[in-house]
Amino acid sequence: MFGRDALRGIIPPLATPLTPAEDVDRAGMGRLVEYVLAGGSHGVFVLGGTGEFAFLDERQRAAAIEAAVEAVNGRVPVIAGVSAVGTRQAIAHARRAQAAGADFIIATVPYFGSSALDQSWIEAHVRAIAEATGAQTMLYNVPPLLRDIEPTTIERLAALPGVVGMKDSASIIHVQDVLFRTRQTGFRVLVGMEYHVVAALLVGAHGATPSPANLIPGRYVEMYERAQASDRDGALAIQEETNRFVDVFDALPVWNAAVKTALHLMGICGPTTAAPVPKSTPDEVEQIRAHLARAGMLS
Amino acid sequence: MFGRDALRGIIPPLATPLTPAEDVDRAGMGRLVEYVLAGGSHGVFVLGGTGEFAFLDERQRAAAIEAAVEAVNGRVPVIAGVSAVGTRQAIAHARRAQAAGADFIIATVPYFGSSALDQSWIEAHVRAIAEATGAQTMLYNVPPLLRDIEPTTIERLAALPGVVGMKDSASIIHVQDVLFRTRQTGFRVLVGMEYHVVAALLVGAHGATPSPANLIPGRYVEMYERAQASDRDGALAIQEETNRFVDVFDALPVWNAAVKTALHLMGICGPTTAAPVPKSTPDEVEQIRAHLARAGMLS
Amino acid sequence: MFGRDALRGIIPPLATPLTPAEDVDRAGMGRLVEYVLAGGSHGVFVLGGTGEFAFLDERQRAAAIEAAVEAVNGRVPVIAGVSAVGTRQAIAHARRAQAAGADFIIATVPYFGSSALDQSWIEAHVRAIAEATGAQTMLYNVPPLLRDIEPTTIERLAALPGVVGMKDSASIIHVQDVLFRTRQTGFRVLVGMEYHVVAALLVGAHGATPSPANLIPGRYVEMYERAQASDRDGALAIQEETNRFVDVFDALPVWNAAVKTALHLMGICGPTTAAPVPKSTPDEVEQIRAHLARAGMLS
Amino acid sequence: MFGRDALRGIIPPLATPLTPAEDVDRAGMGRLVEYVLAGGSHGVFVLGGTGEFAFLDERQRAAAIEAAVEAVNGRVPVIAGVSAVGTRQAIAHARRAQAAGADFIIATVPYFGSSALDQSWIEAHVRAIAEATGAQTMLYNVPPLLRDIEPTTIERLAALPGVVGMKDSASIIHVQDVLFRTRQTGFRVLVGMEYHVVAALLVGAHGATPSPANLIPGRYVEMYERAQASDRDGALAIQEETNRFVDVFDALPVWNAAVKTALHLMGICGPTTAAPVPKSTPDEVEQIRAHLARAGMLS
Repeated sequence: MFGRDALRGIIPPLATPLTPAEDVDRAGMGRLVEYVLAGGSHGVFVLGGTGEFAFLDERQRAAAIEAAVEAVNGRVPVIAGVSAVGTRQAIAHARRAQAAGADFIIATVPYFGSSALDQSWIEAHVRAIAEATGAQTMLYNVPPLLRDIEPTTIERLAALPGVVGMKDSASIIHVQDVLFRTRQTGFRVLVGMEYHVVAALLVGAHGATPSPANLIPGRYVEMYERAQASDRDGALAIQEETNRFVDVFDALPVWNAAVKTALHLMGICGPTTAAPVPKSTPDEVEQIRAHLARAGMLS
Repeated sequence: MFGRDALRGIIPPLATPLTPAEDVDRAGMGRLVEYVLAGGSHGVFVLGGTGEFAFLDERQRAAAIEAAVEAVNGRVPVIAGVSAVGTRQAIAHARRAQAAGADFIIATVPYFGSSALDQSWIEAHVRAIAEATGAQTMLYNVPPLLRDIEPTTIERLAALPGVVGMKDSASIIHVQDVLFRTRQTGFRVLVGMEYHVVAALLVGAHGATPSPANLIPGRYVEMYERAQASDRDGALAIQEETNRFVDVFDALPVWNAAVKTALHLMGICGPTTAAPVPKSTPDEVEQIRAHLARAGMLS
Repeated sequence: MFGRDALRGIIPPLATPLTPAEDVDRAGMGRLVEYVLAGGSHGVFVLGGTGEFAFLDERQRAAAIEAAVEAVNGRVPVIAGVSAVGTRQAIAHARRAQAAGADFIIATVPYFGSSALDQSWIEAHVRAIAEATGAQTMLYNVPPLLRDIEPTTIERLAALPGVVGMKDSASIIHVQDVLFRTRQTGFRVLVGMEYHVVAALLVGAHGATPSPANLIPGRYVEMYERAQASDRDGALAIQEETNRFVDVFDALPVWNAAVKTALHLMGICGPTTAAPVPKSTPDEVEQIRAHLARAGMLS
Repeated sequence: MFGRDALRGIIPPLATPLTPAEDVDRAGMGRLVEYVLAGGSHGVFVLGGTGEFAFLDERQRAAAIEAAVEAVNGRVPVIAGVSAVGTRQAIAHARRAQAAGADFIIATVPYFGSSALDQSWIEAHVRAIAEATGAQTMLYNVPPLLRDIEPTTIERLAALPGVVGMKDSASIIHVQDVLFRTRQTGFRVLVGMEYHVVAALLVGAHGATPSPANLIPGRYVEMYERAQASDRDGALAIQEETNRFVDVFDALPVWNAAVKTALHLMGICGPTTAAPVPKSTPDEVEQIRAHLARAGMLS
């Protein structure tokens, strides 16, 4: 069992490999876990946005967590997404994640009805999950797709014993403000956006969960290590290079489909996404293939 | 079994009565159904936005539909919400709705990941639900909260035999364009926004699903009947009066909580909302009580 | 001099014809005025959005108003746009419009800094313009491009003697609410969006200022006359037909450039737009030419 | 005359002192310039957002630039805002700025009609200003208030000899990407948002134009110097402290009014804002007074 101090370094938000019938592909999950750990990853995060959590039903979710926990087999911490719209649903997801052996659970704000959703509502949701489960609970902030969890709300939640950290996919201003406000508490902040990992580390973030680390975990690990070693120029050089690598995926219409296509071309899992998320088109597949070939990632 | 021609008039989107433990309150649903039918409603819509569908789990949803179908007992059509983020989830919801005896199913667009959600994705989602279930399927358009279903997309979907109508909570321009594009097909359009019911009927809409019809079904029925009788001034006079009635609820922060509080004060069901949706505060309860008293709605 | 009762019917928001050097083309303005009056227009609105007001400097603005007033020569009312970011600028524009002989002035909300712009700020701006100039003043509401002027704000402003009407480019709900709130005051409401003219007239609007009336004024005049004659189906049939005509322009990236190109092809004025607004590309010109030819608008 | 290398360090975007009649207060401008230079500022920026540029007419703008140039008297570079909606207006503003002796001109994107405003339109606007005037031209990026100037657009503009730098009020991701893309060209990047100055400097920005530097220039200068001296922890400590100082202003509804009120309380200039920007309310004045007193800024 890992404690909050294990929330550091590069923790890829894993894609969820699916069979053509959209069942969880446990063997594919196993290969993906081995790939990112071979790259030096410090943990894995199953059922984040890249893991298509919102499109999966209860059974698929449980299977994905079980497969990841089994593949990791205690080598690094496993963070499991339990996001839901209703608190009752989130608690049920969380209990299944605990039963499966996840070290940490993590929840977004409710992803419906955001216009009426204020900070007290968010706070009640997270508090209820943490208290009902007793799990090591993390916040998952993804503005502006979902309502922002304001730094002062995080400050209050970080004072609860069970709320141990967060993934913050907001701006550096937000990441930095959370760090300023929680410094005394042991609260851990993983930065979500892959384009500003170094800047986040320079202002004090503890690690990162970059989605492209499904594909190039080693580059992010090296970026992290250089930043830790105070080699700012070296870290920024890798940041620039990886940003240009990521641009190609970012220009495609459906991020998750593109990541799955790349994993397929790399021999890790199939390209199936959870409907209605569309697969990459043949044109997109060729763009991705050419890009990976140029990067020397296809054998 | 009702056919698409039954999609007309005033069809309230029912609140989902809950017990303090958040289980579906079947007796409360029964009283609510009797109340809106006594007001002359032409159907009921269970598990729309007012019904808090997104906050309820599979079991709660099934119970809500069963309770509504049982209470209605074939007197008017029952539309059942089956909205989900993933297509697999929506199909499972739809099958439960069919098993419970709903006449129509209705689904929003996937309510997560909207930035990547284009029209083809929406079309595939609806088509898959309609084809997998064979149900009389309706679209549920709620922009800008969710991605707009464009009139040309609706035009294509309306050509499928199973897609019989929609609830359109968009602008009059959108409602009117759907009507222009589907006139030849028998597609039925119910307008969602309670503030422009008369205008929608004047440009050809077949009916309305106004949320405040949980509280004042008879006023909307009379508005509809006057519009049908070409009494435009009379219909607009009721529209103005009901809009002013609704303003008081609209000024409160959480619509669904306010509706539930009003139903509680009216003796129909309890005030419990599905967490994390907060209940009305004591101040809000007093505002609502005074408002209902002024309107002569408290005995 | 026309009073507020003259604010009715179809009042096209004129394009501002420019020479290749971007000076106001007075002869072109004369031809455009004759064209729209020949179509039966009940007034003209110079320096609205279609008139590129925000891109023109003080001298160009004054010249445009002078040219329109001279061409109209008292036959119908002239509404002159005086919109500015600062109140001092708007008042200066308004004084030049009065000197040029405009019957009405009209101002948007300040078009910068909208995040801090609340209703009291809008109210102070309009009140200051009306009081400083003594002109017959109109409001120009263009949400969501600019901050919405809320119906209750309009209700307060309509109580001032100098504030006589508005152009409302908001939804039917907004248009209708303004009408409900100002019915007792003689306040005049012209609807701005060309796609819902009939619906607006059916709920009580006094007229319309549709941008495509630069090109097809007669169609809008006929639509208005049928609505006035309670021929709802006839009015809606023209609405549908004109909406399909307008769709082609709406699909082009720069509305004002497309209108100017059409006017150029129709022999009314040159295609020059005010930099940095780009002219139509050669491809766009051909699309517009084909569209006008199909509509029998090219001789 | 200063060249582009002078664009570094802390360059406050000056408020524009106004008399009660809204004329430019030259003596007030003189005192403000002395105050920020006494704090160690490396330049001044007149007629940015804090300078209320959009609310001022041509004469006020020229007077503000003249007053600033005269007060600075060659000690540091003067950047003059020439933003306008139309290119013709911007060029006229730029010529007046050149005549007044400004070292650099700077322009936002056109601040009207943003929905149709694409990157080519922005590029044409800036290019036309730079070429027509021959001035050392800077870009002023203020998303999401105004349309974002994308890094690839900036990369193209930075290749023009006259385009020497920018103020970037976007995210760190954007600032960093501009730096990555223009590193070879001598293009200078000043970061606009006061909350992330240190992060921007750590990823390579050349300086900052923080609005609160009107009030606490010395704190930002010290922050800059520590970052230059590779004292990251020291710089971040000042960042945290100044962010908390700024929070109080940020919580007030009208930023510019709050800054002017503070300057008034500090004896530098009057509190008058350009209508319709409202002055601080009496309550707000007292909040600001208490805040400045706590910070030891009132004598």
